[in-house]
Amino acid sequence: MTTSDARAMLRLPAREIPVPTSVSEQARAILALGPLFATPQWPPLDDPEAWRALIAELDGTALRMAPGSGAHAEVEEIPVGRARVLAITPDGVEPGDRRVYLEIHGGAFIQGGGELCRTRGIDNAYRVGVHSWSVDYRMPPDHPFPAALDDCLAAYRALLERRDAGEIVVGGVSAGANLAAATVLRARDEGLPLPAGVVLATPAADLTESGDTWQTNLGLDNLLAPSPAPLLYAAGHDLRDPYLSPVFGDFTAGFPPAILLSGTRDVLLSDTVRLHRALRAADVPADLHVWEAASHGGFLGRAPEDDERTREIRRFLARCRPA
Amino acid sequence: MTTSDARAMLRLPAREIPVPTSVSEQARAILALGPLFATPQWPPLDDPEAWRALIAELDGTALRMAPGSGAHAEVEEIPVGRARVLAITPDGVEPGDRRVYLEIHGGAFIQGGGELCRTRGIDNAYRVGVHSWSVDYRMPPDHPFPAALDDCLAAYRALLERRDAGEIVVGGVSAGANLAAATVLRARDEGLPLPAGVVLATPAADLTESGDTWQTNLGLDNLLAPSPAPLLYAAGHDLRDPYLSPVFGDFTAGFPPAILLSGTRDVLLSDTVRLHRALRAADVPADLHVWEAASHGGFLGRAPEDDERTREIRRFLARCRPA
Repeated sequence: MTTSDARAMLRLPAREIPVPTSVSEQARAILALGPLFATPQWPPLDDPEAWRALIAELDGTALRMAPGSGAHAEVEEIPVGRARVLAITPDGVEPGDRRVYLEIHGGAFIQGGGELCRTRGIDNAYRVGVHSWSVDYRMPPDHPFPAALDDCLAAYRALLERRDAGEIVVGGVSAGANLAAATVLRARDEGLPLPAGVVLATPAADLTESGDTWQTNLGLDNLLAPSPAPLLYAAGHDLRDPYLSPVFGDFTAGFPPAILLSGTRDVLLSDTVRLHRALRAADVPADLHVWEAASHGGFLGRAPEDDERTREIRRFLARCRPA
Repeated sequence: MTTSDARAMLRLPAREIPVPTSVSEQARAILALGPLFATPQWPPLDDPEAWRALIAELDGTALRMAPGSGAHAEVEEIPVGRARVLAITPDGVEPGDRRVYLEIHGGAFIQGGGELCRTRGIDNAYRVGVHSWSVDYRMPPDHPFPAALDDCLAAYRALLERRDAGEIVVGGVSAGANLAAATVLRARDEGLPLPAGVVLATPAADLTESGDTWQTNLGLDNLLAPSPAPLLYAAGHDLRDPYLSPVFGDFTAGFPPAILLSGTRDVLLSDTVRLHRALRAADVPADLHVWEAASHGGFLGRAPEDDERTREIRRFLARCRPA
């Protein structure tokens, strides 16, 4: 959290924010709902049993609310290190298209594994239209940092045995984008070839939460609010370690072209634009896209704005196609 | 303004927003000042005498606060239609560099003409490092829409007599970015060749002010708040006319590559990202850059973040260089 001179506090009065007319009808319907989730009762960091129960409950709710689109895909399970990868070939992939999207799921570093990893991985692969490897990485409370990063890197290494680096794009949403950026930084630091591109959707790039929109968009974002989950993941490691907070990374030593996506109501808008600036300061080609009035979760996949986001990712993947 | 079901109002409590630690020391010093200007007493729209007095006062204050950097440049005054252009050759332009930046000044459609147009035009030309034509266009209360647009288009036509379209970039800040986009739309509609690029810095792209950040960033932006000046400019014309609100334009019929720049605290962040999306929806190459905690005026040119913004514009102009 920030510390600051009390005199420098900007005092904002209570306000009523209308649903903007500047978004699609479907987006307005989502925004009219207000906050989408009640904040859970977070357990103490030292109560793993309570965390396991809460995570099971949250994952169960997520599966019931979004049981998957029913998109058809072939799924092969591949053991990778101490985790597994779901190798997904969705319907519609062109024969001969060797590109693979190494997809690292989101979920605040604690959710989204197992069955959710499968259903969301299939849906994501279908949307972006390429082969995907979805990493079902280990998570807290039983496996804190760097277990997830170890697993993602092991998946990247395994993929490099089957594909040229130029055929691989690494990406993720939220905590998945954190891990995607950290995986690429670590791959680079370990001398591995870099992938053709990186997709960073509303990245949790700074686990110290120093970004301004953690304050300014708090309550406007209908999905995300502060939680102790990143601290459970970090398990006492320095939060400014670039493998935990990629925004503090050194990108001058090399990083692939990137696409970054966020929304004006996203509490991670600051993380997104700061990571974009860090990449640009190192002369890394990096495209930024921000959607009007969109929160951390966009419009839950129910608005044309979400389709536009998918279209930008597809266009980025098309540019990453080997010549 | 937006209209909306009262039940859908999002109620935000009063808040204290700290100065973020995520920006440069210089930017923190600016943010610690809080609001930079008191809102003037706006005259009624039908009192031109009071507007003339207010505009003279505002321009005088602006000149005293920022009298120009003293950058050296040769300046030639060229009559163009019913206005004038300042043709500026700043020190440091490479011999043989034929590019010209057609710069349309900002100032809420009412300020920034005359001596301010000269000093700011010279400073801008020096920063971006190319020949510039700064348009000293006519403004309200005496010359409402479309006088300013007529003058900017006349300047573009006059420049086309001296340069190939591919040697020209059109750009501006705030109201100047509105006029830059409108000038290019109208040039296209009138069959003129398109410039090589367009610079749209925190554009006032939607004079209906339907953008969400007019609400969400109100009070966070330390410079800009709603004013009747755009209505004085529009003078009763339909605010949704793309020549008044370019975000409603049809870009599928052609538009040059663009760079758009804003900040997370900018009340025109929504206008910026919506215009970016409108361009992208029409497959126009368009780069978006958003600075952490920056308001409509950035950090008043006093922070490294402002230099980064200049650097992105320079890189964009370099890409617009004819082969």
